[in-house]
Amino acid sequence: MKIAIVGLGIIGGSMAMAIKKYTKHYVIGINRTSSTLEKALEMGAIDEIGSEDSLSQADIIILGLYPALAVNFINRNREKIKKGAIVTDTSGIKSAVCSELEKIAGENGFIFIGSHPMAGKETNGFSSADPDLFSGASFIVVPGSAPYSSVKLLCRLAVDIGFGGVRLTTPEEHDRMIAYTSQLPHVLACAYVLSPQCPNHKGFSAGSYRDVSRVAKINAELWSELFIENKKPLVAEIDTLINNLELIKNEIYEENTEALINTLAKSRKIKEQLDE
Amino acid sequence: MKIAIVGLGIIGGSMAMAIKKYTKHYVIGINRTSSTLEKALEMGAIDEIGSEDSLSQADIIILGLYPALAVNFINRNREKIKKGAIVTDTSGIKSAVCSELEKIAGENGFIFIGSHPMAGKETNGFSSADPDLFSGASFIVVPGSAPYSSVKLLCRLAVDIGFGGVRLTTPEEHDRMIAYTSQLPHVLACAYVLSPQCPNHKGFSAGSYRDVSRVAKINAELWSELFIENKKPLVAEIDTLINNLELIKNEIYEENTEALINTLAKSRKIKEQLDE
Repeated sequence: MKIAIVGLGIIGGSMAMAIKKYTKHYVIGINRTSSTLEKALEMGAIDEIGSEDSLSQADIIILGLYPALAVNFINRNREKIKKGAIVTDTSGIKSAVCSELEKIAGENGFIFIGSHPMAGKETNGFSSADPDLFSGASFIVVPGSAPYSSVKLLCRLAVDIGFGGVRLTTPEEHDRMIAYTSQLPHVLACAYVLSPQCPNHKGFSAGSYRDVSRVAKINAELWSELFIENKKPLVAEIDTLINNLELIKNEIYEENTEALINTLAKSRKIKEQLDE
Repeated sequence: MKIAIVGLGIIGGSMAMAIKKYTKHYVIGINRTSSTLEKALEMGAIDEIGSEDSLSQADIIILGLYPALAVNFINRNREKIKKGAIVTDTSGIKSAVCSELEKIAGENGFIFIGSHPMAGKETNGFSSADPDLFSGASFIVVPGSAPYSSVKLLCRLAVDIGFGGVRLTTPEEHDRMIAYTSQLPHVLACAYVLSPQCPNHKGFSAGSYRDVSRVAKINAELWSELFIENKKPLVAEIDTLINNLELIKNEIYEENTEALINTLAKSRKIKEQLDE
């Protein structure tokens, strides 16, 4: 197959490298900055430097763009895309992106399947791309009304390039779950390092500090867009977290040892059951 | 030197193993459960099974007990401890423990030095002990009015058994910093897994979920005591975190992209500067 990858950042770049490393598919790279394309070609991460006109050759088009840019890009190039080709985004929100892209796909004879590779790093750009970024990670797929054979093809590609598993879902379930599993940890890492104590942590910190603060190395522009586009479920999750923090805080403040032990034991039980 | 270790849980047990592995000191184990002592002796983690009467022989006494138990233990055995011997606790709070133990030490002719090894696991007990638990970790020392030579001796022992560095501090600074670097991440891991979404995370989660939820596998009894004994700085840190979560939440809710980007960029900058 010919696969066009649009946007060679950490996700698009890693997709290109992984496809070249683990499959025999032909990869066309499309990117705003031409020096990145040249580097990718030189490294063997892509087979060809493409442009928007190359889209007509592609059997699969993978978008490694910010959500709003992804919609704009496909809208602008909707007539160039081959009939029956599969287009997938890789963005971290689905309700806002999938409905628009599915509509454009339906009107123009190609197939849109939403996807979200659950992998990343605290750095970004092509220089952070890695052919094994997706190793063992979950590939979330929002099939919408796409035909079964196309969904199967995309899932097969995901497994071939190293994903540990595929999770089919709806845009709504995706966005509600991601608000909790991914966006909330990013919000709270940022909130955590804003404490006036943070700059003095050295010598006083260990694993728990390191783990909760890790993703504070955030791509501010990208995550602001993701947070605002997913504001309803995310705000609900932040509220739930604040309520649970208030509960524990009050048990500490009132020195209610019995209630506090019960709450912490409940948390432990939830975590243990999930890790079994 | 003869070193008595009281309480062979994960910390006391790891201390015993590390001392035996990395030094030539003689280790006397003292523990409520005799089967643990027999196992420790068999494994070579201690040289001798001791009792409270063995305390008179020890040059250093390391307490691996819960904070309140540590104070009770030393108070009960204050007359058995050799003049000039060094007693150190290893507990996670310092203001409550150090003032009492320093007073008892002064009245009975031995030396108390507070300490807090910044290492642990999500499991506990002697079966989780590990001679390399402290490898590279910070050893926090609260010298109080202890003589310089004794503090130096204890710090030397810490470095000998693998600690990466020693941080001298006051009980108040210790408790304020630990509230932020260690207790707050434990509180928020517990608060985080209490969300109704948590049990459904599989297939939707990756590193950020894993890292923030890790320490929810908490020892509820121990941490309840630590939280309540340190309630003033800890409640202040929880309030600071809630305020910062509210700030970010409102920027998302109001779709104030510019303010949100600025806040996230500020967090990123703090984290980047600390990691340099």
